[in-house]
Amino acid sequence: MKIIKTAREMQEFSDSLRREEKEIAFVPTMGYLHEGHLDLMREGKKRGDCLVISIYVNPAQFAPGEDLEKYPRDFERDERLARDVGVDVIFYPSDREIYPDGFQTYVDVEKVSNNLCGLSRPLFFRGVATVCNKLFNIVKPHVTVFGKKDFQQLVVIKRMVADLNMDIEVVGMPTTRESDGLAMSSRNAYLKEVERGSALSLSRSLKLAKELYEEGERRASVIIEKVEKYIGSHPYTKIDYVKICDTETMEDVETLENESVLALAVWVGFPRLIDNYVLGEPLNMM
Amino acid sequence: MKIIKTAREMQEFSDSLRREEKEIAFVPTMGYLHEGHLDLMREGKKRGDCLVISIYVNPAQFAPGEDLEKYPRDFERDERLARDVGVDVIFYPSDREIYPDGFQTYVDVEKVSNNLCGLSRPLFFRGVATVCNKLFNIVKPHVTVFGKKDFQQLVVIKRMVADLNMDIEVVGMPTTRESDGLAMSSRNAYLKEVERGSALSLSRSLKLAKELYEEGERRASVIIEKVEKYIGSHPYTKIDYVKICDTETMEDVETLENESVLALAVWVGFPRLIDNYVLGEPLNMM
Repeated sequence: MKIIKTAREMQEFSDSLRREEKEIAFVPTMGYLHEGHLDLMREGKKRGDCLVISIYVNPAQFAPGEDLEKYPRDFERDERLARDVGVDVIFYPSDREIYPDGFQTYVDVEKVSNNLCGLSRPLFFRGVATVCNKLFNIVKPHVTVFGKKDFQQLVVIKRMVADLNMDIEVVGMPTTRESDGLAMSSRNAYLKEVERGSALSLSRSLKLAKELYEEGERRASVIIEKVEKYIGSHPYTKIDYVKICDTETMEDVETLENESVLALAVWVGFPRLIDNYVLGEPLNMM
Repeated sequence: MKIIKTAREMQEFSDSLRREEKEIAFVPTMGYLHEGHLDLMREGKKRGDCLVISIYVNPAQFAPGEDLEKYPRDFERDERLARDVGVDVIFYPSDREIYPDGFQTYVDVEKVSNNLCGLSRPLFFRGVATVCNKLFNIVKPHVTVFGKKDFQQLVVIKRMVADLNMDIEVVGMPTTRESDGLAMSSRNAYLKEVERGSALSLSRSLKLAKELYEEGERRASVIIEKVEKYIGSHPYTKIDYVKICDTETMEDVETLENESVLALAVWVGFPRLIDNYVLGEPLNMM
């Protein structure tokens, strides 16, 4: 397994792979890998001849006061996990390599970024789109794999790739969950023992929404109210949003007609956790 | 010479060239080709095994009330000129191909876009950067050639390519001029016979600035004032801006220390014409 730290060297390596007609699969991460990341990598492994991952905690997607400095990091452990799953290259750049002095170019995906996490974190998706644009130009993948746990991020990346004619296939994979249903996230590491039960209210509320949907409920406001009430009944929780949106436009819907996603963001103690469920789809949890 | 109208087909053609290790040179244009464009193409011809040009009048870089509808077009003539100069591919897309329904992603190059033309045309460089980003992803060139006549555009494109790690060499070529000194521009076609003399005041004012600079003048305000006075003494002229800026940051300078550019935008009758001169460099005119 190679570890590459500069954009130039990564591009040259990718060029050499492409000359040999090798397919490059790419999984961008912020490190502190968990089983969810590893599932994306296993998928990447199937889809490419060479699997590249990046480990980079992107400052452009953190606002002042968010957890940039605190964000969990453990490169040695990540390296071991990546090697075990068969990663060929870890791209592991410094901040100076990604945002050198004078940097001033940003990619804005406008409409689909405006709702949900874009409301509570106004420059978040600009940061995500910009760094992914850069990483795609550096790694030059044929296919890239993202998790559906960050549902809106997946929509933003798909939109950017289509709008800017980036010649890359974007694959979305189902959320990987703990055995109790909690969606895997590096930020789960912030949870205190006593908060764990409350953190489960997110995934359990998705189950509740699934039941309502299957009973025929199509009014978004009714589903949202019951989900909010359920989550709110747990200690340590503070709801950022509970919304139901069109999966293509990310606009709020009133009545469930087209494909829609129930998306939640909830503080549980310190961490702000997210989860989502595309109404009518199976929910991969016991 | 091939004419390709879809992004998909262009990407596939470029992929096949790259597999054969051919170098792709690219000159983006808005058509209505003149000797200035042809000079860029001749340079592209030298630098690549395959020369691709694009002809596309990009609506995203016109504001409402600007000359989008009026902008001169003549594809048959362009095709003949391109063939004569040895172009291999014209990429000639429709508006629907470039901006399909739902399009919403824009590239902003922030600081260097803010002065000069960015002041009088606020979304102009966002339109330029976005369409060039798309065209680069569609044509997949190794090298792209731009004219220094659009000096700020060249700075914006170089900045975008560097900031987003686009693996492309950006070459800037000297302004091509008519025998009387007028910078070549598709918009010169708008000039009436009686306005032609006034249009010459732009390039002649650059000469005046060159003389002042060579005599040792280093105060930007003094040079600007004399240039404004000279241009203003010609009928049909209306100055948009006369500025002296740092060639890297595009910020106004007071005293000429680092490399600086005198940049002008002047309406002469209907058309708004631009020209520029990097102080201390040779000026390619009789």
